[in-house]
Amino acid sequence: MSEQGNVIFVGRKSVMNYVLAVLLQFDAGAKKVVLKARGKAISKAVDVAEIVKRRLLENKVEIVECKIDTEDVGEEPNVRKVSTIEIALEAKE
Amino acid sequence: MSEQGNVIFVGRKSVMNYVLAVLLQFDAGAKKVVLKARGKAISKAVDVAEIVKRRLLENKVEIVECKIDTEDVGEEPNVRKVSTIEIALEAKE
Repeated sequence: MSEQGNVIFVGRKSVMNYVLAVLLQFDAGAKKVVLKARGKAISKAVDVAEIVKRRLLENKVEIVECKIDTEDVGEEPNVRKVSTIEIALEAKE
Repeated sequence: MSEQGNVIFVGRKSVMNYVLAVLLQFDAGAKKVVLKARGKAISKAVDVAEIVKRRLLENKVEIVECKIDTEDVGEEPNVRKVSTIEIALEAKE
């Protein structure tokens, strides 16, 4: 496990798919799990973080960081900018 | 203007509509503008913040806070939970 924690990229699968992935990471002993998403999947990443925090690991996990940024995607000359989000969840001691 | 700064609710209008609203607030002298969104509009709020920061007010505005949460919407017995985001933009001195 890197210092950054385990990263899960949120994309086209269902919300519950990613919720399960987060749970499995914490269950395997991870102290920190980072959700990354871009474009329209940003809303989904927020849903995943909130469901994990409120419904499934209540009082066991907290959101320690929420960072937004911009990335370039595609190849020249079709590069376009897309918004990204990173949400870090950490297991409480 | 409240201490919390001016709040803009991001919903169904186009991204550029909200970008303009943010620019007008800063132009009118606001030191802080807060974008709020819920559900699928969360991705749009992130786009608005990133466009203002990177393309329009480069080096003049920074994202000072990005907070996610859950709200109940609807009336009993049809209450459901929806994710929310708050992004605070602040004018640099």
